[in-house]
Amino acid sequence: MSKVLIIGAGGVGGVVTHKCAMAKGVITEITLASRTEAKCRAIAEQIPDFPVKTAKVDADNVPELIALIKAEKPQLVINVALPYQDLTIMDACLATGVDYLDTANYEPLDTAKFEYSWQWAYEERFKEAGLMALLGSGFDPGVTNVFTALAAKKYLDEVQEIDIIDANAGNHGQPFATNFNPEINIREVTAPCRHWENGQWVETAPLGTKRSFDFPEGIGPMNIYRMYHEEMESLVKHIPTIKKAQFWMTFSDNYLKHLEVLQNVGMTRIDEVEYNGQKIVPLQFLKAVLPDPGSLGPLTKGRTCIGVVAKGLKDGKKKQVYIYNICDHEACYKEVKSQAISYTTGVPAVVGAVMMLSGKWHKPGVWNMEQFDPEPFLETLSTMGLPFEVVDGGDWLELT
Amino acid sequence: MSKVLIIGAGGVGGVVTHKCAMAKGVITEITLASRTEAKCRAIAEQIPDFPVKTAKVDADNVPELIALIKAEKPQLVINVALPYQDLTIMDACLATGVDYLDTANYEPLDTAKFEYSWQWAYEERFKEAGLMALLGSGFDPGVTNVFTALAAKKYLDEVQEIDIIDANAGNHGQPFATNFNPEINIREVTAPCRHWENGQWVETAPLGTKRSFDFPEGIGPMNIYRMYHEEMESLVKHIPTIKKAQFWMTFSDNYLKHLEVLQNVGMTRIDEVEYNGQKIVPLQFLKAVLPDPGSLGPLTKGRTCIGVVAKGLKDGKKKQVYIYNICDHEACYKEVKSQAISYTTGVPAVVGAVMMLSGKWHKPGVWNMEQFDPEPFLETLSTMGLPFEVVDGGDWLELT
Repeated sequence: MSKVLIIGAGGVGGVVTHKCAMAKGVITEITLASRTEAKCRAIAEQIPDFPVKTAKVDADNVPELIALIKAEKPQLVINVALPYQDLTIMDACLATGVDYLDTANYEPLDTAKFEYSWQWAYEERFKEAGLMALLGSGFDPGVTNVFTALAAKKYLDEVQEIDIIDANAGNHGQPFATNFNPEINIREVTAPCRHWENGQWVETAPLGTKRSFDFPEGIGPMNIYRMYHEEMESLVKHIPTIKKAQFWMTFSDNYLKHLEVLQNVGMTRIDEVEYNGQKIVPLQFLKAVLPDPGSLGPLTKGRTCIGVVAKGLKDGKKKQVYIYNICDHEACYKEVKSQAISYTTGVPAVVGAVMMLSGKWHKPGVWNMEQFDPEPFLETLSTMGLPFEVVDGGDWLELT
Repeated sequence: MSKVLIIGAGGVGGVVTHKCAMAKGVITEITLASRTEAKCRAIAEQIPDFPVKTAKVDADNVPELIALIKAEKPQLVINVALPYQDLTIMDACLATGVDYLDTANYEPLDTAKFEYSWQWAYEERFKEAGLMALLGSGFDPGVTNVFTALAAKKYLDEVQEIDIIDANAGNHGQPFATNFNPEINIREVTAPCRHWENGQWVETAPLGTKRSFDFPEGIGPMNIYRMYHEEMESLVKHIPTIKKAQFWMTFSDNYLKHLEVLQNVGMTRIDEVEYNGQKIVPLQFLKAVLPDPGSLGPLTKGRTCIGVVAKGLKDGKKKQVYIYNICDHEACYKEVKSQAISYTTGVPAVVGAVMMLSGKWHKPGVWNMEQFDPEPFLETLSTMGLPFEVVDGGDWLELT
């Protein structure tokens, strides 16, 4: 008999709610809260066979969060709100004695700075309170960390290099739209690139390194661009044999053209500009005119392919393993009314919750995904809609 | 002894003030007014040898305009504010018995609709009051109307076709910026194209017709795009022999790429969108992040070339005449602290004012530029910085 409180009613919040309702063996009560309760109610109405309770909460406001958690008494808070709100929700969990899970690391509103430092600083407080915080239980970060842990446990004696490769081979048919919150998406892709090499971060121009990767199962070759992504920070800390870590994402020429222009004209700025006596952040205003990613669900066709190529030593010999998942946008929409981008983030959040609530993964403190046994997680993930494939050996990948 | 009140302290307002101050033989007192008086004072300070008075006025507010005109007692109001404000300023001129001149026709704020109908509707009231309103005394409209009138007076017996061709062969070195008010510029270029053919307007897609034109004096061939421009409306009315009228403007591939993206994402919309509980017009917000056209003055190099190719009959034979002006951005900036776009609009406004104040062009009613004798206007224009060239005959131009 476990109760979860889900905070955030965007695309991912919808998937998490649907999937929690399907995990009846572990999760017996659900409250879904967000700044706009109507969005929660719309999701609850999609799930007639499970009584999802809804609530209104401002996730920037710690006293409001504490009052909600005290009223609802969940065993676990699943945070799928905005990354700006991770710390307020962690504070509220500490104040009320409840476990915490999220899918993306904390990011201050005024700088596009992706670091675990702020959340890792909660380690002692969670440990002393006997509470657990599981960080980054989405797909990337999340499943990519678990894939790397699986490579280290089962396929390699020593993981030395990883390339995390994320393809959205889908198409929403719009001239320009982001697949998730445009503000978060554009902050991420316009940030300088960093990758890990020989014990340090190497900074290069945003999307300045372009390669081609031949994706499996008929997706074929696509252009991929190197960028910073948060799971590299925890992976190189927790798996210190990793000498080189890179993250790659596909972008279409059309997406990049739009991004270039929006940057040129200043619409991706995250500082405030004066407008008619008010202060407005251009990127936040841009979000207001771009298509709501939620509206793309019924329009998006094609597949995503996200995986990890891990290289290292096995029995003293060089060896490579590629572990990936392929997910179909239309199948996701049919199942939970969201496309694959939200689906691949939301399902691992529920699997992480199931790991914590079932006790398979449960230790006081602040944890990243690769610090636990990957196999029970991946087993549950496969049964909940995200199976994975392993290419053990094969053509050696050299991206840089 | 004539006093003018200039309303509007943007790039064009600056040029008009500088040039009025140079026309000392006709204009003896100048008041420059705008919503932001500091902008007026900054212009006045550039002209130490002429005492330019400044004032603050909201040009949307008729009682405020009337109070200012009553206090200043000018012979003529030169309106170089926004096109949305033409009617309020005309109302104030009627209420105070003062002549009126502008450079661009009235346009309602909520629809990109360029028509003289609103201003022509003032004809009876101006005539009865014994007042004159001169409409569109900029370059295009303005000098292009006068070039057409010159073709009709001097070079052709009957003008049958006109192509008005406007090139900005300059470069400001910015990734994207508009040469004048970005809001007005983008409204204009994103509007459907209309041209006049056989007694009616033909509507085609915005910038949907692309040709190349070989500009004179070493500028060479550039891509030109057909679009609607307001002087065609008055020209086909007042010179009814014109069977076909088209307007063409140069745009770089880079400008068009930026415009396409900004349209795709909705940033050129002129309707209001909800943003944090406020209503904001995306195009007006875009203006707030784009470079201030005034800031481009010192950066812009190269020339403009604006002219009219008029075709028709002379002594019973087909004949063509091309009348154009070439203007250098850097020379303009050196003279009046503005690049050629503002210069070519502001100088003809002052020439129009000189025509009215000297009595060379003065009749009660509402008038367009082609309704007066072109020669005294062009003579003064040449002496005030905008000479013109005539290619009488030559290769026959067929753009469509």
